[in-house]
Amino acid sequence: MSHAPTAALKRRHNVIQDALETHRVDALVITALPNILYLTNFTGSSAIVVLSADRLRFLTDSRYLTVVDETRGRAYECPGLEVVTVEGSYDAKLAEVLAGQGWTRVAFEATDLTVSRHAWLISKLAAASQVVDLVPTEGVVERARVVKDEYEIATLREAGRRLSRVADEVPNEVKAGRTEREVAMAIDSRIREAGFSRTAFDTIVAGGPNAALPHARPGERKLAEGDLVVLDFGGVYDSYCVDLTRTVSIGAASPRVREVYEAVRLAHDRAIQAVAPGRSRFDIDAAARRTLDERGLGEAFGHGTGHGLGIEVHEGPRIARRRADVDTADEAVQAGMVFTIEPGAYLPGWGGVRIEDDVLVTENGVDVLTTTPTDLIEL
Amino acid sequence: MSHAPTAALKRRHNVIQDALETHRVDALVITALPNILYLTNFTGSSAIVVLSADRLRFLTDSRYLTVVDETRGRAYECPGLEVVTVEGSYDAKLAEVLAGQGWTRVAFEATDLTVSRHAWLISKLAAASQVVDLVPTEGVVERARVVKDEYEIATLREAGRRLSRVADEVPNEVKAGRTEREVAMAIDSRIREAGFSRTAFDTIVAGGPNAALPHARPGERKLAEGDLVVLDFGGVYDSYCVDLTRTVSIGAASPRVREVYEAVRLAHDRAIQAVAPGRSRFDIDAAARRTLDERGLGEAFGHGTGHGLGIEVHEGPRIARRRADVDTADEAVQAGMVFTIEPGAYLPGWGGVRIEDDVLVTENGVDVLTTTPTDLIEL
Repeated sequence: MSHAPTAALKRRHNVIQDALETHRVDALVITALPNILYLTNFTGSSAIVVLSADRLRFLTDSRYLTVVDETRGRAYECPGLEVVTVEGSYDAKLAEVLAGQGWTRVAFEATDLTVSRHAWLISKLAAASQVVDLVPTEGVVERARVVKDEYEIATLREAGRRLSRVADEVPNEVKAGRTEREVAMAIDSRIREAGFSRTAFDTIVAGGPNAALPHARPGERKLAEGDLVVLDFGGVYDSYCVDLTRTVSIGAASPRVREVYEAVRLAHDRAIQAVAPGRSRFDIDAAARRTLDERGLGEAFGHGTGHGLGIEVHEGPRIARRRADVDTADEAVQAGMVFTIEPGAYLPGWGGVRIEDDVLVTENGVDVLTTTPTDLIEL
Repeated sequence: MSHAPTAALKRRHNVIQDALETHRVDALVITALPNILYLTNFTGSSAIVVLSADRLRFLTDSRYLTVVDETRGRAYECPGLEVVTVEGSYDAKLAEVLAGQGWTRVAFEATDLTVSRHAWLISKLAAASQVVDLVPTEGVVERARVVKDEYEIATLREAGRRLSRVADEVPNEVKAGRTEREVAMAIDSRIREAGFSRTAFDTIVAGGPNAALPHARPGERKLAEGDLVVLDFGGVYDSYCVDLTRTVSIGAASPRVREVYEAVRLAHDRAIQAVAPGRSRFDIDAAARRTLDERGLGEAFGHGTGHGLGIEVHEGPRIARRRADVDTADEAVQAGMVFTIEPGAYLPGWGGVRIEDDVLVTENGVDVLTTTPTDLIEL
């Protein structure tokens, strides 16, 4: 279980319950696990939540009954939670719950429920005496999650502090002759030792030409003198994800390395300076992109400037280019949002640089949650 | 990238291409990543495959172009692969591909595609001049995956061998005074050192009363003299998952511990003896369940006896109880199937025992891929 206090869970329920009225539905069926965790603190892998105006029905199976029971009376107990035990099929039990309440309109998460499960539920509900319409919705819980509450901010702050201390030590693991894979394993151990329950994603250690691949996998290549090495790693702390990247040079950096590194560092700094409540997320991206463009590195920066952090390592807001086929809704960032700033420059055959920190939008501007220095380290 | 040889990929394509004819469709859109890996060796996180009679269109974005290019001319190159570069939205590019071929019926994976993506594609295709019907299918690629080919069997055999060597050493990590979390971290390091790219799932170390929870998370509880400790861990080797559980006693085992342990061990042995081509998967489960039932432990065994292993750590076949609301199709196991046998007994407040090995169904019977002894270890 995660540890959001009961009062925080209650406020989260209220936000979703207000949305039920807006959608004129009797309940929302929540199948996406990160959304279930957000509303209940449940960190297991099998559950469905049915949230209605007066209660939260929690469908789970015998494997998880004890963990849920143990939260009773604790500071992080989920309020209004009523356990519905599943024996056999989750969706059969869900259909039974939905058909048994006198409800006529029930919303579901259309970005999570598959076409198969949806078709099966419809056929099952059609066979019941009560007519229940299934109403597709998108992002009801995700929109609430994008602005973090006090508990989440404290958790992400602590996670950022811990990941920064890991980052301070990571350059000690980078040595000519070690393979990328060995360095990645050493970083993963340090993340776990720092109190994270697990890494937030597969750690990236990309040296020399591999540094030109933004999503390189650590391989058997041995790091060598003269390599630039991109180190991108993250951890999950009490269910919340943080993410950090530094690029180091093995040996003295060439003038070209310094030039590219300083361009990326300036892009990183300017993007952070652009963060404030009410600012457009596209403008934050543009601050980084323009800086690299001016230095002839615009083409070398192929990805977005950042992504939201929280229960998922990639969530809203997306700090990206304004583009015709990308959703331009909810453009302004707000106080309480937490996201990465991670510009990079990738030059095929030559190598690459990425510098990434995690920021919190505050009432007055921005707070950087990861605090290890960004100066170029020459090992 | 994974390393299935080109000829194996070709055979896999042919199986799916035959299914296209059966479904009378022009192509199958494959969105489930494990299925994409199976057909192309691609291990990245963003791609869509459109498989038609004469080629495999591979939609991916700039981050992955280099890794795909580097497979050209290699022994594990994907045959007939045509890269379609995505800039912006994957589904917009997919709609463009589907509308541009003169196709009228295209199948999709209804157990993977969400209601939102499906509705969006339908609206997009309705706007195109070419009328394309989207046909829901379930399990087309998964059914092929359930019987492993020669390359997969060799990979799983090597993975099982390596995991067994890890298991031989794991009891050395279990000591009174160490926390469950510390032991789990030590096991994870050993898995990585044994050549696995990562753990297959979050390692379980559950001591004393926690051993009664089949899905316990390793916590800050210190292991103590007299504890039974369930150790359940797995690794991913060249994209294939293996999974193993042993239960050890810290100090001398009590008569009751011996009794429960031997009952689970006998259930494990009898289930393995029941494995042979043509045998019902329900009967294999029954062999374990009956054994525990006869010893008064039927109620203490709440989960299924096993699950298939492959690109996913939980796939077909499910070795479970025959039950009215569970799919009873494809009852007989076949040569080439690989799955776990993992009976357990969980007694709330007291503790638990689980013993798990991975087996391959052969032409003549069964081969156990994990080979560490099952005798009760008293530390």
